Amino acid sequence: MEPIKIIEIKKSIFADNNIDADELRDELKKKGVYLLNLMSSPGSGKTTTLIRTINLLKDKIRIAVMEADIDSDVDAVKIKEATGIPSIQLHTGGMCHLDAEMTRQGLDSVPMEDLDLVILENVGNLVCPAEFDTGSCRNAMILSVPEGDDKPLKYPLMFSVCDVVVINKIDVLPYFDFDIDKCREYVRMRNPKAQVIPICAKTGEGVDVFADWILREVENWKK
Amino acid sequence: MEPIKIIEIKKSIFADNNIDADELRDELKKKGVYLLNLMSSPGSGKTTTLIRTINLLKDKIRIAVMEADIDSDVDAVKIKEATGIPSIQLHTGGMCHLDAEMTRQGLDSVPMEDLDLVILENVGNLVCPAEFDTGSCRNAMILSVPEGDDKPLKYPLMFSVCDVVVINKIDVLPYFDFDIDKCREYVRMRNPKAQVIPICAKTGEGVDVFADWILREVENWKK
Repeated sequence: MEPIKIIEIKKSIFADNNIDADELRDELKKKGVYLLNLMSSPGSGKTTTLIRTINLLKDKIRIAVMEADIDSDVDAVKIKEATGIPSIQLHTGGMCHLDAEMTRQGLDSVPMEDLDLVILENVGNLVCPAEFDTGSCRNAMILSVPEGDDKPLKYPLMFSVCDVVVINKIDVLPYFDFDIDKCREYVRMRNPKAQVIPICAKTGEGVDVFADWILREVENWKK
Repeated sequence: MEPIKIIEIKKSIFADNNIDADELRDELKKKGVYLLNLMSSPGSGKTTTLIRTINLLKDKIRIAVMEADIDSDVDAVKIKEATGIPSIQLHTGGMCHLDAEMTRQGLDSVPMEDLDLVILENVGNLVCPAEFDTGSCRNAMILSVPEGDDKPLKYPLMFSVCDVVVINKIDVLPYFDFDIDKCREYVRMRNPKAQVIPICAKTGEGVDVFADWILREVENWKK
């Protein structure tokens, strides 16, 4: 296997990230490429969820993944090995989030003309990534059962900027005090339109619902 | 019960946080108060661990807790109810970390002259809090089993600044691929002197080891 491409992300020079993010979205619309920004805490199962989801989608649409990480390239390697799709690693050099310009640096290294969907796996962090528009078409986040159902109360911004909340690791529900209905209610307090999708990335349960949502989104974007 | 005191933290004006942090440590040394900075991901069980630990220590030393949170006061209320010790809430107003000046703003609201130990529960985040010296005597962090044993590889700075790594939720080890020996090895790669303490905050298993470490630290600090 070819070695994973690693991009060392540079700090942005743009003063207004919101304008830059809107411009990036316009470019993506023109190119017909859908960008999904996936956020979560460390250890919520982003990479496993992505592998399952991509394997359900890769025969229907053309996908690439950009893995943002502070230092390692573990995740990009895992995804490439498990799915065979183009996967690059973005090194943030200690930075706790990605903004639109940093995302663009990554997109410059994927074959945009051959793609329908790019998934950006943001830095594992429930605070800072929520504050910066990456230029993505939508934001999704993964909350895992062991983290607790109260997270929407504690990280309000993250939950208000996400259109989809995937609840992962539902196989361990019997061992944790996690109430899915209560969690849905808390998510709705932050964003009444957010969709909540319970899954188990380990067994694959529910992942098709998330994959179908992505597929519909990509189709609408290309219209 | 008296309502929880909530401090709205203001952004720091100090240019050099490292100098400010050293000054704060000097002041703490003079007052004989030990400050422990406790960090972790969201949902790792910081608050439950603190409650167990404080209940083992509160008859031996005088303790107060400062709970940093972006928005809610859930944790400060929980700690006060479960332990009876002074507990205040620091609202960071969306900020992803605390620095020394922000920590000082919190310390101004606890009864320092009547205390041996102040525990600062930092914002749930493995990235930004590691970058800012809070002026604490030591840093500790909690990594929970569901987050995965590879976290020291992915969040190198956090693990290199911590003197103690508490591994929480060992009761669910059978349901997750988490290798404690491997994790110890990864922690040592980042910080050869770091102590690793496996616990289960829910049942109390191992918490006495963490409490004893804190007690020794506080005694040495006051010498």
